[in-house]
Amino acid sequence: MIQTPYLLFLGDAPDQLAAKVAQGIKDWRPESAVGQFRMENCGADVGLADMTLAEAQAAGAKTLVIGVANRGGVISAAWKEVLVEALKMGFDIASGLHNLLRDENELMAAARVNGRTLFDVRIPSVAYPIASGVKRTGKRCLAVGTDCSVGKMYTGLAMDAEMQSRGMKSTFRPTGQTGILITGGGVPLDAVIADFMAGAVEYLTPDNDADHWDHIEGQGSLFHASYSGVTMALIHGGQPDALVLCHEPTRKHMRGLPDYTLPSLPELRDLALQVAKIVNANCKVIGISVNTQHIAADKFEAYLAEVEAEMGLPAVDPFRQGAGRLVDALAEI
Amino acid sequence: MIQTPYLLFLGDAPDQLAAKVAQGIKDWRPESAVGQFRMENCGADVGLADMTLAEAQAAGAKTLVIGVANRGGVISAAWKEVLVEALKMGFDIASGLHNLLRDENELMAAARVNGRTLFDVRIPSVAYPIASGVKRTGKRCLAVGTDCSVGKMYTGLAMDAEMQSRGMKSTFRPTGQTGILITGGGVPLDAVIADFMAGAVEYLTPDNDADHWDHIEGQGSLFHASYSGVTMALIHGGQPDALVLCHEPTRKHMRGLPDYTLPSLPELRDLALQVAKIVNANCKVIGISVNTQHIAADKFEAYLAEVEAEMGLPAVDPFRQGAGRLVDALAEI
Repeated sequence: MIQTPYLLFLGDAPDQLAAKVAQGIKDWRPESAVGQFRMENCGADVGLADMTLAEAQAAGAKTLVIGVANRGGVISAAWKEVLVEALKMGFDIASGLHNLLRDENELMAAARVNGRTLFDVRIPSVAYPIASGVKRTGKRCLAVGTDCSVGKMYTGLAMDAEMQSRGMKSTFRPTGQTGILITGGGVPLDAVIADFMAGAVEYLTPDNDADHWDHIEGQGSLFHASYSGVTMALIHGGQPDALVLCHEPTRKHMRGLPDYTLPSLPELRDLALQVAKIVNANCKVIGISVNTQHIAADKFEAYLAEVEAEMGLPAVDPFRQGAGRLVDALAEI
Repeated sequence: MIQTPYLLFLGDAPDQLAAKVAQGIKDWRPESAVGQFRMENCGADVGLADMTLAEAQAAGAKTLVIGVANRGGVISAAWKEVLVEALKMGFDIASGLHNLLRDENELMAAARVNGRTLFDVRIPSVAYPIASGVKRTGKRCLAVGTDCSVGKMYTGLAMDAEMQSRGMKSTFRPTGQTGILITGGGVPLDAVIADFMAGAVEYLTPDNDADHWDHIEGQGSLFHASYSGVTMALIHGGQPDALVLCHEPTRKHMRGLPDYTLPSLPELRDLALQVAKIVNANCKVIGISVNTQHIAADKFEAYLAEVEAEMGLPAVDPFRQGAGRLVDALAEI
């Protein structure tokens, strides 16, 4: 686990979008971040106090988290100056960049000399087991999508936050680098060796109290030719008791695959449920989470009502409406 | 690609079963092996001429292939003596052992000094792409199983051999270490990073002549909780035109999963076809390959006739009956 609290490094982010990891931490785990570190020319601001390394350390920060995408895929000399200084002062560093911290000699050397840890959360740090398929105690909810990047992580985080606010037992279980940085731990599933994918998900969601819910972060889509194997392993390793269907209704084709149209929600429901029942005969689809960001404010509710009527299940946009009705549906099973 | 012809190293194999990789090469690619190398106390014999390293080299052998499972998971000192000598003489070495050749310092040193190559076929040697989902030319047949280890590799090899003997265009495309050693190339799919699984299968089966068939080696099962993600990626990366269902009818539960019963053949047909149609709307199930080794010689034909009547598709045991009827069915689509 990555030690909290964090100082969020925004570097020289060109715009707000480039700082989405930092924004995710601020939105979902504000208690984990004491402040933000911005270089000159930084075009992003996640609304935390600006701090120097020394100020952050005085405020208790243990880890500098790279909360920004790097330009051109390289960790620049200007970044490295800050990162090496942070290591010298006693910070660990955590990053989800493709360009690994451990591949930078200066950072490795500074970490070693100062006894600090570099967390490259894109790379598994555990030798995961082969999945056993054995039933675990506690309950699990998994978001599955008609496509990639339709709001599965957001849905899981929103359901977890809603359950926490109601005093219910709940944990968000990240399977991607943003989720891992937000919560401080998880499995970077897309970087796991094929044979161990389902085992990694079992490892991520161990036995728990009978009334505890794990919200497992979904990845890919059963209908996405590039990543369906990852989704399959999530379902079979996760053994979900509940599925939430996630959808983005304005998308013209599968992400990155111009020749593939999206499946309908009934198609997703039928295939995902059939696959889930192989490992959990009692699995149910409990609701639909729709990303309506491209539908006007005066139209999205009518659209959701249509979906709800067609599917016979609660259909909500958790960003616009909260995840309350999805949690209500979960509480019933 | 691993250079042929091979000298098959049987070492000190305790029994015939331990030499199944060598047996596979002898059965399916006899032209690739000039002989076998057996140490004292070797309990296996694949029926090739016994040769010293020098004799094999004189007969043209380029690569020493480890055709035997190692005892206790270690490459013994006695083995290493032979392997180092082979490298000095100019052989490459190929192995599918978990215990990698490259992790043995003496072998690495001898390979480097003598300019030879160590092929650890369990480990990918290529940076595979993300799958594009783009339709390729040529045709593809994939064996899918009700369970793991039900005869998928054998089925593919037998169909390929039958097509070759008829003068049809056909290639066997291995996805596991035994298949890779048999043919000299392929993708060790269970060792590929999750995000690149389907892309590795696309890489394995590129564009080809319109009347050419790739027989893609199947792995795992859509119904096997531990490995279903690998199977899914095979289907979506392979974009098969034809599926062959593979089954072993006497198995009591899924391999390694005592709590899971096998699916029925209709269940396998329906799920595999539904998943395959996501990437190839014209995919068809063309036949059933049954491993009847545990059914008596006077009973297996009656069993196959039952399956054939139930499924309305040719049902054969390719080991006992050959793959002719499966190839007939393939030729019709």
